[in-house]
Amino acid sequence: MGNLKLVVVGASGDLARKKIFPALFSLYSQGLLPNEVEFVGFARSDYSDEAFRRRISETLTCRYVPGESCAEKMDGFLARTSYLRGEYGDSNAYKRLLDGRACDKIFYFSIPPAIFADTAEALGASGATEPGDGAWTRVVVEKPFGRDRKSFDELNERLNAVFPEEWIYRIDHYLGKEMVRNIQVLRFANQIFKPIWDSKHIDRIDISWSEDIGVEGRGGYFDNYGIIRDVVQNHLLQMLALVAMEPPPSLDAADIRNRKVELLKAITPLNPEDVEIGQYVSGVVNGVEHPGYGDDPTVPDDSLTPTFARMKLQVLNERWEDTVFTVKAGKALARRESQIRIVFRASRSNVFCSLDGGCPMPNELIIRVQPDEGITLKITTKVPGASMRFHVKELDLTYSDAFDAEVIPEAYENLILDVVNGDKSLFIRADELQAAWDIFTPVLSYFEENRVRPKAYPFGASL
Amino acid sequence: MGNLKLVVVGASGDLARKKIFPALFSLYSQGLLPNEVEFVGFARSDYSDEAFRRRISETLTCRYVPGESCAEKMDGFLARTSYLRGEYGDSNAYKRLLDGRACDKIFYFSIPPAIFADTAEALGASGATEPGDGAWTRVVVEKPFGRDRKSFDELNERLNAVFPEEWIYRIDHYLGKEMVRNIQVLRFANQIFKPIWDSKHIDRIDISWSEDIGVEGRGGYFDNYGIIRDVVQNHLLQMLALVAMEPPPSLDAADIRNRKVELLKAITPLNPEDVEIGQYVSGVVNGVEHPGYGDDPTVPDDSLTPTFARMKLQVLNERWEDTVFTVKAGKALARRESQIRIVFRASRSNVFCSLDGGCPMPNELIIRVQPDEGITLKITTKVPGASMRFHVKELDLTYSDAFDAEVIPEAYENLILDVVNGDKSLFIRADELQAAWDIFTPVLSYFEENRVRPKAYPFGASL
Repeated sequence: MGNLKLVVVGASGDLARKKIFPALFSLYSQGLLPNEVEFVGFARSDYSDEAFRRRISETLTCRYVPGESCAEKMDGFLARTSYLRGEYGDSNAYKRLLDGRACDKIFYFSIPPAIFADTAEALGASGATEPGDGAWTRVVVEKPFGRDRKSFDELNERLNAVFPEEWIYRIDHYLGKEMVRNIQVLRFANQIFKPIWDSKHIDRIDISWSEDIGVEGRGGYFDNYGIIRDVVQNHLLQMLALVAMEPPPSLDAADIRNRKVELLKAITPLNPEDVEIGQYVSGVVNGVEHPGYGDDPTVPDDSLTPTFARMKLQVLNERWEDTVFTVKAGKALARRESQIRIVFRASRSNVFCSLDGGCPMPNELIIRVQPDEGITLKITTKVPGASMRFHVKELDLTYSDAFDAEVIPEAYENLILDVVNGDKSLFIRADELQAAWDIFTPVLSYFEENRVRPKAYPFGASL
Repeated sequence: MGNLKLVVVGASGDLARKKIFPALFSLYSQGLLPNEVEFVGFARSDYSDEAFRRRISETLTCRYVPGESCAEKMDGFLARTSYLRGEYGDSNAYKRLLDGRACDKIFYFSIPPAIFADTAEALGASGATEPGDGAWTRVVVEKPFGRDRKSFDELNERLNAVFPEEWIYRIDHYLGKEMVRNIQVLRFANQIFKPIWDSKHIDRIDISWSEDIGVEGRGGYFDNYGIIRDVVQNHLLQMLALVAMEPPPSLDAADIRNRKVELLKAITPLNPEDVEIGQYVSGVVNGVEHPGYGDDPTVPDDSLTPTFARMKLQVLNERWEDTVFTVKAGKALARRESQIRIVFRASRSNVFCSLDGGCPMPNELIIRVQPDEGITLKITTKVPGASMRFHVKELDLTYSDAFDAEVIPEAYENLILDVVNGDKSLFIRADELQAAWDIFTPVLSYFEENRVRPKAYPFGASL
């Protein structure tokens, strides 16, 4: 590994402070980054190097390693960190990143989507993104990637005019989560799941995501997107693609991403009648009154933005044509939970159907993404006792019991390391986003053009 | 349910006292027996009713049920229990059981195998086994059922001359164990196991049984049989049959037993080279010296009786022709353990084979029969962390955690209740025993005719 300069554009923001710098420090302290690494924060705020280091140092945490000093590592990390002030659209500001030496470069865009393209163009014009002899440049961008197929194509065209597609790492931080990364291992490293991974054996796959908080004063950004664009079109659709894609011929990024695109293209674009939308109103949870979405001062009056959506998706290929996929996402619900639930088919001709209890319940495999990461397999066993009764019990693997909880890394750590290593398998390729937008664009347009009002649900509801 | 008279023939023995009467009391105290039930102990020892009641009352235990008095139930049970003294081959002795009333009758043979036939003939001649108008008679016999195919056929012919086959309940107490009864539920009530239950998906099925004690002064009986007749030909072969039989069309006893016979008939009779035999010699466990088999005063000098056996069995039918079945049983080994281990096939073309760790380990399903009854499924999951490494972890269901341990009944309870209810599905039909003996008779004869010496292994060995 050669020299590496890692520039966080938008370094004064919350994401940079709470997620990106802690992840960088964690990778640095584990020795997973090149020895000659340098971190630069870039933003409009006025910080000295010292003040910036103080700011980010507050969110760094060490894993305890016997015989190693945390303070020493933090000092080392902060000594390699500097700050550069500038306007995002000002190419001169970026010229100060140039020092004439060739080195590998990562530009991490931690900025609002509205200024993605301008920032990219200014950066390109500055020459700061030129990798130099034998080195490489990579650009990390986060969602939202447009608001629909058309705006994504426009944004992408402007980015591609500055950066070749192979430089671009589109992050979906959900793909960095341990249990999401585990989907491939579960599916393809366990022979027992292979023969039963199709419509003949799986009745239903439910993917769900819920938060037990509302927009909490940050409705300005959210209101422009809504739950489908914010969570479903990216995180949940990506999980669906990983669960349902055909086995890739190898673990190479291109092979995996080809399989995901094929799967996304097999999903029928949604019709309005397949999608149910909701918006939370005030509600009482544990005796505490929580404001509704419309009550949030950052949300425009009479907003029609959905904070909840539930939909049925149809995957029209040979493997899945008779399996129902449902995707559900919502804010301000009863629980914080994200999981994939695979419900196998029951049999009506089962020999046990003749007993009093009726036919056995179908088996279920549940992948818990958060919280309490783990895997549960529901199986039917005999209830102990003289009579032949049965009961569904859970074979369980909870990650925090099975592995030292301390070592479950944050999604951002996994993903940033992949950027450093040039492993694109967990990043979203432009054609994946195009296929994803093709599924949702018609129904999003329909809701907006017809000003469809989401159904009200109380804060804290179980939907 | 009508009147029931339950006669334990051989009531002064250990099995009757430790297992049969406690099981009868447990069923009685749960209200699972007919209201008009009567228990009779028959044996050669000289007990008064009172002395016999005292003797068996020592081994009765109550499950705690709120609001119910244990003493009251025990008194009720003992009041229905009487004792009859007599010689087993004396038909006059049994005439005292006649009281002219028609009632359902169960005769439980808890006597040495050498006197099975004589006892049956005397009982038959006495008229005591005549059920009378509208009632039934059932006769419970326990292993050993002969020493080989020929002696079984002879014994069976004599029994059948007195009792019709439908009266006879051949007990294998292993079939009453919860996890053995659970095999059918696991296999047939869980759709996910059906497509993978064959040679294409299962590489190996290992059935094992071990004790951590030796014959402990009871070598006289054992030496005449050896481990293959004592454990393998019955308990372990029955487990194999339940694991491997074709799905029965119903849960009716006849259907299940037909499937088991079909399976046993598909097993190739063993050749001497498929079977490894051993006999334990003295050994030190935790600093304590344990005597060898030959050191036991009840074992004849220079006994060639195996106390350990391991063998490969081949099931030649469409489902199993490429799966290896191994069966292992031994006394005086390192652990007390009985389990069924189903090892699925690994794949050499797995995408993960390209990683440093090599191909993933095959999945395993383990049914723990004793101790610590439960089910474990070994699956491969990703090791948490930035890199893509994997690890085998266990999805576990331990019965005593999942169900109140108190309610896991003893095997004898399950089986006696089945006799009362006339459910023969867990009892061994004559043709099952014939098929079982056909597998083992040639190799047993070979060992005996050629005086093959078992390999010595030290007490406490791990084999």
